[in-house]
Amino acid sequence: MNKNLPIGIFDSGVGGLTVLREFLAVLPEENYLYFGDTARVPYGSKSSKTVIRFSLEVSSYLADQGIKLLVVACNSASALAIDDLRKLIPVPVIDVINPGVSKAINMTNNGKIGIIGTSATIASGAYEQVLRKINSKIKTISRPCPLFVPFAEENWIKHPACKLVAEEYLETFRNNKVDVLILGCTHYPILKDVISEVMGPEVTLVDSAESTAMEAADILSQNDIAARENNSPFLKFFVSDLTANFRKIGEQFLGRTMENITNVPVEKLEKYKTVKKQEIDKRTKDKN
Amino acid sequence: MNKNLPIGIFDSGVGGLTVLREFLAVLPEENYLYFGDTARVPYGSKSSKTVIRFSLEVSSYLADQGIKLLVVACNSASALAIDDLRKLIPVPVIDVINPGVSKAINMTNNGKIGIIGTSATIASGAYEQVLRKINSKIKTISRPCPLFVPFAEENWIKHPACKLVAEEYLETFRNNKVDVLILGCTHYPILKDVISEVMGPEVTLVDSAESTAMEAADILSQNDIAARENNSPFLKFFVSDLTANFRKIGEQFLGRTMENITNVPVEKLEKYKTVKKQEIDKRTKDKN
Repeated sequence: MNKNLPIGIFDSGVGGLTVLREFLAVLPEENYLYFGDTARVPYGSKSSKTVIRFSLEVSSYLADQGIKLLVVACNSASALAIDDLRKLIPVPVIDVINPGVSKAINMTNNGKIGIIGTSATIASGAYEQVLRKINSKIKTISRPCPLFVPFAEENWIKHPACKLVAEEYLETFRNNKVDVLILGCTHYPILKDVISEVMGPEVTLVDSAESTAMEAADILSQNDIAARENNSPFLKFFVSDLTANFRKIGEQFLGRTMENITNVPVEKLEKYKTVKKQEIDKRTKDKN
Repeated sequence: MNKNLPIGIFDSGVGGLTVLREFLAVLPEENYLYFGDTARVPYGSKSSKTVIRFSLEVSSYLADQGIKLLVVACNSASALAIDDLRKLIPVPVIDVINPGVSKAINMTNNGKIGIIGTSATIASGAYEQVLRKINSKIKTISRPCPLFVPFAEENWIKHPACKLVAEEYLETFRNNKVDVLILGCTHYPILKDVISEVMGPEVTLVDSAESTAMEAADILSQNDIAARENNSPFLKFFVSDLTANFRKIGEQFLGRTMENITNVPVEKLEKYKTVKKQEIDKRTKDKN
């Protein structure tokens, strides 16, 4: 495999850019393709069937461009579509749930871990399943926090209303004295300050972006596919809808300017539901 | 035309149920088909191209079921897709913007009208265009209020955070002393109490649901297609994604229980982009 093939990162919208940001810090020499499914965002309020379908289309599109690793930088897609993606996509697939869980288990002292995320992620019970597989004694409490995403996107992260919302959502975690809280949605790191203020300094907030980037580094190294002598790494963005907000919110999430944004309309994406694993496999090989 | 053909009402999700609610009050003897595009909701943060595409698919699907009137019960779709819908759909098409504007002009004394809505609706300038066509002397101020929809869907309409958000969004309208505020999003009637509390009793809130139902009654009567001797009117719901929240939030918006919900997956909807006006026309006639 060509070691300078890009890493594909996919999210329902802009949230995954907080994950890309960590990747750029941990693996700055890599090339990246980022796909935000902005025409159909959010995934977090939708059914598993629909999330799987959309995730397969976007991931197949990225695979077809030629990537060496796929990062599912969306908790809802990681919770609901990861098994299907691993079956279809012919390169290693990393989710954002497992790295977050490993970190949370390392950090907890009292064995009580809280999980916040979208309605779809929380309803899936994906975090609890992974947690219990690793340590069946861990106690978990979870709750969806649907207002956090729009507050992050409005950038009202210091607004008193945001604090009131956080107090309401997080009360149960304080009452139950969790000592680790998993931020199970890629938007939530944007709200880290207010969440930390409400939870208090004794509670560790775990966002999976950094752990996911570290896991990716391990996989690249184990498979000997890390980029080499790449002096001018590239960064390309794809969106299913070219909205006014993608760049505006995106640059704030990513912490740098965004160039090179390509619109891939949904009618093009929809065709990728019929792309077979073998076909993608062949195309990926052809490009190497 | 068969007078007992249903009225088709379409929205990006649950918001249009506040419109259906008024229709059921004003025209209780009619049959209704309601479509919520829950797989791709919201429309309000997306580009006009995408909103037009989704609107055409959903409306064509409804037309294909056989309807006598189409109500675009979504401000974003009304603002961006109405011309294309009128070209394609072979029955009268009503939007929610014109009825709201007529009512607002009737209600204002000082000629200063405020408009709130989604980012897409406000960016389109559709309300201002219609207002100026009727009365060029009206002064308008508008602003998008993206946090109102998630507060309505969380049903946190009495929460202190909701009041703080309303105060922030509405400050400009108070400072500019508008005496009428158009609720340019079908979710906003759910927040009427808090908006009214912030704006004060001297400001009239206009939601277009009732005016839209009155306009529909006029059109049915002018075309002599109002339902007759319909003792058991039916009410059918279609969604592009069967989410856990549709019924839960929907019943609260509609103010009654919801039965008869059919899932029309997006892969079925997508086919309707190729349905031609003539074909729908023929099918609608066949059913009469």
